[in-house]
Amino acid sequence: MLLVRGGTVITADSSQPADVLCGDDGAILAVGSGLERPTGAQVLDAGGLLVMPGGIDPHTHMEMPFMGEVASDDFFTGTAAGLAGGTTSIIDFVIPEQGGSLIDAWRAWRSKAEKAAADYGFHVAVTHWDERVSEEMGELVRDHGVSSFKHFMAYKGALMVDDGVLMRSLARAFELGALCNIHAENGEAVAWLQADLLAHGLTGPASHAASRPPLVEGEAAQRVIAIAGVHGAPVYIVHVSTEDATRAIAEARARGQRVYGEVLAQHLVIDDSVYKTDDWLSSARHVMSPPFRPRHHLDALWAGLASGTLQTTATDHCCFCEGAKRKGENDFTKIPNGTPGIEDRMSVLWDHGVRTGRLTPQEFVAVTSTNTARIFNMHPRKGLIAVGADADLVLWDPEGSRTISAATHHQNVDYNVFEGMTVTGLARHTITRGVLAWSDGDLRAVRGAGRYVERPCGNADMMASTLRAAARDPLVVA
Amino acid sequence: MLLVRGGTVITADSSQPADVLCGDDGAILAVGSGLERPTGAQVLDAGGLLVMPGGIDPHTHMEMPFMGEVASDDFFTGTAAGLAGGTTSIIDFVIPEQGGSLIDAWRAWRSKAEKAAADYGFHVAVTHWDERVSEEMGELVRDHGVSSFKHFMAYKGALMVDDGVLMRSLARAFELGALCNIHAENGEAVAWLQADLLAHGLTGPASHAASRPPLVEGEAAQRVIAIAGVHGAPVYIVHVSTEDATRAIAEARARGQRVYGEVLAQHLVIDDSVYKTDDWLSSARHVMSPPFRPRHHLDALWAGLASGTLQTTATDHCCFCEGAKRKGENDFTKIPNGTPGIEDRMSVLWDHGVRTGRLTPQEFVAVTSTNTARIFNMHPRKGLIAVGADADLVLWDPEGSRTISAATHHQNVDYNVFEGMTVTGLARHTITRGVLAWSDGDLRAVRGAGRYVERPCGNADMMASTLRAAARDPLVVA
Amino acid sequence: MLLVRGGTVITADSSQPADVLCGDDGAILAVGSGLERPTGAQVLDAGGLLVMPGGIDPHTHMEMPFMGEVASDDFFTGTAAGLAGGTTSIIDFVIPEQGGSLIDAWRAWRSKAEKAAADYGFHVAVTHWDERVSEEMGELVRDHGVSSFKHFMAYKGALMVDDGVLMRSLARAFELGALCNIHAENGEAVAWLQADLLAHGLTGPASHAASRPPLVEGEAAQRVIAIAGVHGAPVYIVHVSTEDATRAIAEARARGQRVYGEVLAQHLVIDDSVYKTDDWLSSARHVMSPPFRPRHHLDALWAGLASGTLQTTATDHCCFCEGAKRKGENDFTKIPNGTPGIEDRMSVLWDHGVRTGRLTPQEFVAVTSTNTARIFNMHPRKGLIAVGADADLVLWDPEGSRTISAATHHQNVDYNVFEGMTVTGLARHTITRGVLAWSDGDLRAVRGAGRYVERPCGNADMMASTLRAAARDPLVVA
Amino acid sequence: MLLVRGGTVITADSSQPADVLCGDDGAILAVGSGLERPTGAQVLDAGGLLVMPGGIDPHTHMEMPFMGEVASDDFFTGTAAGLAGGTTSIIDFVIPEQGGSLIDAWRAWRSKAEKAAADYGFHVAVTHWDERVSEEMGELVRDHGVSSFKHFMAYKGALMVDDGVLMRSLARAFELGALCNIHAENGEAVAWLQADLLAHGLTGPASHAASRPPLVEGEAAQRVIAIAGVHGAPVYIVHVSTEDATRAIAEARARGQRVYGEVLAQHLVIDDSVYKTDDWLSSARHVMSPPFRPRHHLDALWAGLASGTLQTTATDHCCFCEGAKRKGENDFTKIPNGTPGIEDRMSVLWDHGVRTGRLTPQEFVAVTSTNTARIFNMHPRKGLIAVGADADLVLWDPEGSRTISAATHHQNVDYNVFEGMTVTGLARHTITRGVLAWSDGDLRAVRGAGRYVERPCGNADMMASTLRAAARDPLVVA
Ligand SMILES: [Zn+2]
Ligand SMILES: [Zn+2]
Ligand SMILES: [Zn+2]
Ligand SMILES: [Zn+2]
Ligand SMILES: [Zn+2]
Ligand SMILES: [Zn+2]
Ligand SMILES: [Zn+2]
Ligand SMILES: [Zn+2]
Repeated sequence: MLLVRGGTVITADSSQPADVLCGDDGAILAVGSGLERPTGAQVLDAGGLLVMPGGIDPHTHMEMPFMGEVASDDFFTGTAAGLAGGTTSIIDFVIPEQGGSLIDAWRAWRSKAEKAAADYGFHVAVTHWDERVSEEMGELVRDHGVSSFKHFMAYKGALMVDDGVLMRSLARAFELGALCNIHAENGEAVAWLQADLLAHGLTGPASHAASRPPLVEGEAAQRVIAIAGVHGAPVYIVHVSTEDATRAIAEARARGQRVYGEVLAQHLVIDDSVYKTDDWLSSARHVMSPPFRPRHHLDALWAGLASGTLQTTATDHCCFCEGAKRKGENDFTKIPNGTPGIEDRMSVLWDHGVRTGRLTPQEFVAVTSTNTARIFNMHPRKGLIAVGADADLVLWDPEGSRTISAATHHQNVDYNVFEGMTVTGLARHTITRGVLAWSDGDLRAVRGAGRYVERPCGNADMMASTLRAAARDPLVVA
Repeated sequence: MLLVRGGTVITADSSQPADVLCGDDGAILAVGSGLERPTGAQVLDAGGLLVMPGGIDPHTHMEMPFMGEVASDDFFTGTAAGLAGGTTSIIDFVIPEQGGSLIDAWRAWRSKAEKAAADYGFHVAVTHWDERVSEEMGELVRDHGVSSFKHFMAYKGALMVDDGVLMRSLARAFELGALCNIHAENGEAVAWLQADLLAHGLTGPASHAASRPPLVEGEAAQRVIAIAGVHGAPVYIVHVSTEDATRAIAEARARGQRVYGEVLAQHLVIDDSVYKTDDWLSSARHVMSPPFRPRHHLDALWAGLASGTLQTTATDHCCFCEGAKRKGENDFTKIPNGTPGIEDRMSVLWDHGVRTGRLTPQEFVAVTSTNTARIFNMHPRKGLIAVGADADLVLWDPEGSRTISAATHHQNVDYNVFEGMTVTGLARHTITRGVLAWSDGDLRAVRGAGRYVERPCGNADMMASTLRAAARDPLVVA
Repeated sequence: MLLVRGGTVITADSSQPADVLCGDDGAILAVGSGLERPTGAQVLDAGGLLVMPGGIDPHTHMEMPFMGEVASDDFFTGTAAGLAGGTTSIIDFVIPEQGGSLIDAWRAWRSKAEKAAADYGFHVAVTHWDERVSEEMGELVRDHGVSSFKHFMAYKGALMVDDGVLMRSLARAFELGALCNIHAENGEAVAWLQADLLAHGLTGPASHAASRPPLVEGEAAQRVIAIAGVHGAPVYIVHVSTEDATRAIAEARARGQRVYGEVLAQHLVIDDSVYKTDDWLSSARHVMSPPFRPRHHLDALWAGLASGTLQTTATDHCCFCEGAKRKGENDFTKIPNGTPGIEDRMSVLWDHGVRTGRLTPQEFVAVTSTNTARIFNMHPRKGLIAVGADADLVLWDPEGSRTISAATHHQNVDYNVFEGMTVTGLARHTITRGVLAWSDGDLRAVRGAGRYVERPCGNADMMASTLRAAARDPLVVA
Repeated sequence: MLLVRGGTVITADSSQPADVLCGDDGAILAVGSGLERPTGAQVLDAGGLLVMPGGIDPHTHMEMPFMGEVASDDFFTGTAAGLAGGTTSIIDFVIPEQGGSLIDAWRAWRSKAEKAAADYGFHVAVTHWDERVSEEMGELVRDHGVSSFKHFMAYKGALMVDDGVLMRSLARAFELGALCNIHAENGEAVAWLQADLLAHGLTGPASHAASRPPLVEGEAAQRVIAIAGVHGAPVYIVHVSTEDATRAIAEARARGQRVYGEVLAQHLVIDDSVYKTDDWLSSARHVMSPPFRPRHHLDALWAGLASGTLQTTATDHCCFCEGAKRKGENDFTKIPNGTPGIEDRMSVLWDHGVRTGRLTPQEFVAVTSTNTARIFNMHPRKGLIAVGADADLVLWDPEGSRTISAATHHQNVDYNVFEGMTVTGLARHTITRGVLAWSDGDLRAVRGAGRYVERPCGNADMMASTLRAAARDPLVVA
């Protein structure tokens, strides 16, 4: 047993002094002020610290095969780095082979993830459509604890699906009570722009950003919102990076549609100036999709979080070292897409968000864990501090300061997009299912300690949407 | 002690089976499954019921002197009716005399409210500006538990303040950490339209709606949002009744401004058809400001609640019987403004909101109590179900059905705007600070049992706003 | 020679009394007050009449093969009916065979159109993409007077093109200085909805509207605007029928993009109540794409015209008689899409637009002829009244009244969607290239009198767009 | 007589080679190709030049008494400078004394303006409200050729009117068929910010901009649009400088409201960086209201012109020399507001607008003269090139280049906000009512040659608005 004593417990809706007792089974046994220390219980002094639910990163790609490379952080190193930053759960993406079985892919990912040091779940990608896909979606939901499916509107010739597949897959998922998440960029426009830029000899990383302008993301967001709207189904848009997509979500919500948006810590604080450099490698290391944006988009994203238009924060953690990035030296379309982030998300959010007044501490909790747990059906096991919930906690030092660097981070990758940034607010201790996994700079992550989190379908939002869709007269349209 | 056993506890963020033990001091002693019944504790069977925080109505006018009349529901009858409907707290409005002392008025209202059967707080109206007002605002905040101030942009010649007063009062309140709430209608436009309609011989109640068209509300909402934006201060708009004002709030939030909106149960389900009748009295009984609106506004309001653009629901409960309404028989501007609502708000919201899938049960709790408690600093005493919180509970029967009627309601007024509406979802039992005040149709409200709720300043939102405003360079503007 | 004497000449920007002298070569010889009557000139008394440029309908489908039928109005009957209503030119659509040659199709349409009684031009549809299409677009522009190309985002399995084709075709057209026009509906969503409705046994014409809800049009409009925005190319959206698409155009224009919108007379005055009937035939006769819409869309369309967001009016004139419509008796997807309109467009616009104050007489001229002539490069031959321009005139009786009916119209089709509508404002005389073709109810249309109008590329808007696109740094994005 | 030969005539809707013959009475006698030279007619070679309507500047303040100073350009020097830049007419503002007679003020301004070298009209300001104002508005319209009235929502304690006055004055003007123009800034907010900035010791010119942030303009624009909307009256917003106000206008137009917006050449090309300097005088010389804005607003203004949301360009020409500006050395609120611009408006617009592809040459004509003439009822005497119109012409050299400087300009003021800017596109010759007043650098402006232009009421837009307002059911609201 572990007694976290003397801290201030912050949840998505309140802030008050309280102790937290974590049981040996990994669940929270008690929350309250002046809790007795049970015999044998270890005591962790949380004086001056904020006790918050451990972070959940709903968007990571550990050891993902992509563009001929494999992401360098595996499920162990990646989750361990997460623990060092206060993140205690991830949801990673299962990507089936072209035309392949979703179940087979899910099994393969389950196997790879057994080494994880923290808990994990999976979204499963739908990259084509046929009867088997439809059936396997059902099986994943019924038997394997998968309640969300991923779709790519970009990556033409690889992962991209067209509107016909989206129509079918969203309908099927809605029928199952599962949520669809969407990478929203117009893949045809991107492909044309890539070819056009290459044809003009513009082969460097700056072309990556130029080939994926904001309107290409805004368009796709609008489109999938319309498609979901046809069904009355909720939809979740990953890595919203633009004012355009944020506004599309806000407008849909203003019409009563349940649309969710996720934003990456990286997109919140880094702008497109990273591509305006002669340092090829530095620029290539910032190649991700969507790319970094002009500064006014960052303001819109922060406001999106504070206003409730965007609900979650993530990292799209996907690490490629110099060797991999160099594959695209003569052709920006060959640079593996992705940046690291899992270790620093929470500090960056706190420093740039809470300390500036953009977010309250409660909102910080909501967007780093609680909303994610609710939307993706990990609630009430994850994302809150309450009796019976998993004892996944971060003891946050709001005044602690550190300077981010690849030289000191725990991520298995040779750079950090926040390199040199000094942030105030850090994870002093991280507890995963009752076990101290990070303590004052000491990383005690245990290979294989993480558990697969089954995520059931049909949360309150989904049920409300189903009710509402059922009530629609199919012959009456707005 | 009272043990509520076997229900499903619904809060703003979760739903799970649990018992709730209410102490004799009126606070919650325990929440959990299978709670032991302490000796002597009464047991209330909540089987099949939802146990939710008692409703909070942040906008009532009990026994208010207005337009030469006094509202017929007093603090006892009005709060008692609230208990019958599941509402356990109100925030009423102190309206000083023209140019008079805020403190004096607050004392007068405190005195009138001593008969209340449920807990209450006060917003204090600022209807003019001078040094004394500024000082008394400080005193109310420091010494009297007032943390919100009301402003009227309408009612020319009576309560209306101009933009200069708004600028000053919002600045002063922000400095104090207090929140301003605003009746947003352009009073000059209303006055002109009233005169114009009367001049054209259009003296009936339909002219009331015509004199306060949606754009007059939308304009005022835009304006006060801009004024608050100049200061970086949060602002709360009462009784939002239009798509126009809802959109204004959404746009402000999308820019990162903290703006809140309240919507009345009446405006959510009744449209402007009530004025299209030859029945003068029926039409006059629907005279309130803002008036009822064309139907598309209702959709926008519901979506505003679901999307988080609007946070609270209220009633603007203000009762005038036939005799009072008749004062305006020859001149619609003389019809006392106001409708009853406190008793039926929660049933109407559940039936039209939750049962249609517009809102989840959790969102219902958020918009009927939790958000209000947070915004107006009654949290964590009110608006949640947790150890230490006030034992204000409603045991909700989601399948119970009743037909609303003045013949059976407990409000001290001779009509009901929901007359004849059959609603499913009702308060089976209501508990106020641990005491059963309404049980299966038996109203046990106790005159004087209500307590004044001191509401401190400076919640998390306010502190974040202050931080953010302080960081602005006064010479840099967007 | 024909001297039009004593009328008030109305153009897109002015209104003044003037005579107009039409030469034997079909051009205007003089405009002015008190013109001398040349020897031998016929005089037409225009006293009390408004002399306006003859209408141009930029969207017709004469004798089009579609859905297994052929539209019943051919180039003679259709243009003759147009003359009876004051319309003196059309632009029709060349639809190549699947995968076929654009040039061959253009020749086929040229041949069919030789019987036309009024002048005509052609848009040519791009329904697939390959090198030959690209080359033939060039040839059509250079050698055949075609400066606009049509694209369908709907009609899956038939005319629909995907975003990849749109990207390519818009780029190619922009390079040529030609304008793309777009039928904007998401064809995948429509196809899914059609199948879903049929699967639910909803086989009647009301399902036609339900399968093409407003958001399906709004989405496609947004998308093609984004695609054009990638290139910096102007784009023209045909038959805008929704507030959604109108707003998409307005927002694009507010960003500086040159986007044009066309609205049909039918969509301006008929709403979706036409599908709420048990009269199958009546409902089927209103089957067109996009379908008729709830009333608030109509307001948005009128405002779009007055504000300059929408520039042109058309009819999508496409006639199918009862026999053809009956093909879809058991399956709404088999009802040939289309409604007649060419004969009544101008009267309907005048009556519902000018007489209500929605449009000024000058704006009426702009949206019925001048803007169309400019956008589609018929200006300054068409769309204005000036020396040297074609003497295409309508002598409009603003107080003349008539009741529209299939019993009396000149269109070769057995119904009229405006049946029974009494309109004030009608063509008293219509002059096509100096010849009186309609006079006081006497239709003197001459088979084969119409001429093909070559429309050059590169008007001022196109040149400005090219200038602006050329100045963009390909590596800088908004 | 003067024959302008060999040029390309550009109007708001066309571009074609034509000669223009100007009569001795100052009107255009003929327009056409290959015009015969009448005996005695002087010939002006327009080879390579564009012949356009002379510019109209609808917003100037010649020799205006303001803030204790008098603007240094008087009606002669100011209009002469305008001629050097291609502007042949102005509309200036009559500002009555506080509470004074509108007629008296109009007479005083008529008298001052007799020295003008170019034609002029007057808007008359309404700065308070009583019966006499209402009557004098009528007299000005009936007897004095005034058809527009000005209102200030800013300048508290001086020119500012409240919403009550706006309601009354807009109603009265609409009844008269006259147009209201509005300086839209929230004067209460400005006054509070001025006091606050001064209280913080921020006394320099940068505080001028900080005291008038964009939202203060956006708010006022929204408000007056709502007020006009109550009446159904058109309204014209002067010197729109923000995206906020531009969007407010666009949204109103999308609802069918007739709202016009004017933009200043200065605001189109100069941004707020002018206040970020240690050079007090330079910064003070850019003090005008509204102030210069962050760059993204400039993009919105350009797009506003191209899209038709904004219709006119002006300069708010109001000159104060160093001595006058120095009055505010210790207090930015004492710096006389205003900048020069009349001489350079057209060149700046051409260079930054037409040469970049933001505007077509035809749009340039529309926004520099034609739209203004139409909106303010100078059409068809001004703003077009047609027989019978005033022979006010500018012969534009689209390739001619000059560098703007106070050292060489003709304005009577010691600086130029465009100092050092090299522009391509200039007035080679300017003709005012048939007389060559500027030719190849030779300014031949004649003191007193300008004539007062009577501007009748009730143009087509106004008549349509009246029709539409009359049709409204006063009891039906949106
Ligand atoms: Zn992605
Ligand atoms: Zn990803
Ligand atoms: Zn109120
Ligand atoms: Zn109230
Ligand atoms: Zn079509
Ligand atoms: Zn068509
Ligand atoms: Zn001004
Ligand atoms: Zn001015």
